[in-house]
Amino acid sequence: MKKLTIIKVGGKIIKDPDVRNHFIKNFSIIVGYKMLIHGGGAVLDEFAKGINVETKVVNGRRITTEKILKLAVMIYAGLINKEIVSKLQSFGINAIGFTGADADIIRSSMRLVRNNVNYGLVGDIQKINVHLLNKLINNGYTIVFAPITHDGEGQLLNTNADSIAGEVSKILVCNYDIRLVYCLDKNGVLVDETDENSIIKELSYVDFQKYKKDGAISRGMLPKLENAFSALFSGVKEVVITCASDINCQNGTYLKL
Amino acid sequence: MKKLTIIKVGGKIIKDPDVRNHFIKNFSIIVGYKMLIHGGGAVLDEFAKGINVETKVVNGRRITTEKILKLAVMIYAGLINKEIVSKLQSFGINAIGFTGADADIIRSSMRLVRNNVNYGLVGDIQKINVHLLNKLINNGYTIVFAPITHDGEGQLLNTNADSIAGEVSKILVCNYDIRLVYCLDKNGVLVDETDENSIIKELSYVDFQKYKKDGAISRGMLPKLENAFSALFSGVKEVVITCASDINCQNGTYLKL
Repeated sequence: MKKLTIIKVGGKIIKDPDVRNHFIKNFSIIVGYKMLIHGGGAVLDEFAKGINVETKVVNGRRITTEKILKLAVMIYAGLINKEIVSKLQSFGINAIGFTGADADIIRSSMRLVRNNVNYGLVGDIQKINVHLLNKLINNGYTIVFAPITHDGEGQLLNTNADSIAGEVSKILVCNYDIRLVYCLDKNGVLVDETDENSIIKELSYVDFQKYKKDGAISRGMLPKLENAFSALFSGVKEVVITCASDINCQNGTYLKL
Repeated sequence: MKKLTIIKVGGKIIKDPDVRNHFIKNFSIIVGYKMLIHGGGAVLDEFAKGINVETKVVNGRRITTEKILKLAVMIYAGLINKEIVSKLQSFGINAIGFTGADADIIRSSMRLVRNNVNYGLVGDIQKINVHLLNKLINNGYTIVFAPITHDGEGQLLNTNADSIAGEVSKILVCNYDIRLVYCLDKNGVLVDETDENSIIKELSYVDFQKYKKDGAISRGMLPKLENAFSALFSGVKEVVITCASDINCQNGTYLKL
């Protein structure tokens, strides 16, 4: 099977223009089929602050009001997505930017109220158009996904980029040998969050549960790892959590069954 | 040849949610192949005003500073484009949103200083990927263009939506019988701008020159009509300037050779 590298990159890396451009350059030289899923939360937070729009996060997840959704669509699907696409084009990569609404490629449903928390206009992925994904990839396009989907009834929804990366990887396992890489501003999964050298080189699901119980792995890393393990269990060949500057996974945390 | 309807719609129509939704509904029921090119200047102006960003227009054309380009990409390629795409999807139209950067579909070059006016980060169209356009149209996709292109060197550029509509129409004349419709907040080309009933029903290029000399047709309508006549001269079957609520061209101004 042909190889496909799927990279997820977070908002913190995208926020700094120099770091971002360096990252995009490195992404552009990955050999073979590739796809990029970007976040943008840190850019949104900064922009919202600058225009005095309040942002709110509960349990590490954003509350997406109508106002925040508007900004998210502007910043994720507009600014960040198109800047990445045009930069990749300048490096000779035939990039094409997508939200889930475009060509109905990812459909989601609005998240129900959970544990008394209403996350607002947030989408949980329901359906991915695998035929179109295959066609685009095989025709040499590098898809760049913004973390926005739609419900098929005209409502755009803010959608976790880690989930998009995981779900898109899972749906393509029959067609490609997939390496899924989550790029962070940290060196990988750390035993001690304050020590960048405490990288866990190989992480099994059993060990993950242990670290979780201990509290060594916590907060935002938990849903990320749940997504990542779910992809591994579904047949994704390789799942790595590493630093954005280590896009070829020389270091970082390799997940193991 | 197969029929293709290409509609350009301006920012003033898009700004009001009810008017916009009505327009999108009407667009969705056009029979056969169709494409939509939208502006967004009025939405940008309102947003910029709300966050105290100055906008400047010289000779009816916007000066695009770096700050304005950022907002244009956010609002045109993000907010407006994705709201239209998701709404069309809800009406069963397989819409896909594009800027010129996506799949390198429209490449432009930055406009040179003209008559001592530096318009800033504005693109003049250089190259359109006709093969991809054909493929998408023939596969049943309804392309929704935001008025943003790129220079192939990583720079996004603000690009006149009338020009995109005209140039895209011209490049597709060999493949389709094209009706190109410019949808306005006016009833068509008027002899007297203050009288909505003074529509010119048929306008030849000779008459256009006469009206232009008289001053009856002036300002923003001039570049629009130059674009429109250029499309007609290049083989576009039908070019109509009409009101947004008259998408099927029962009224409005029909251009004649």
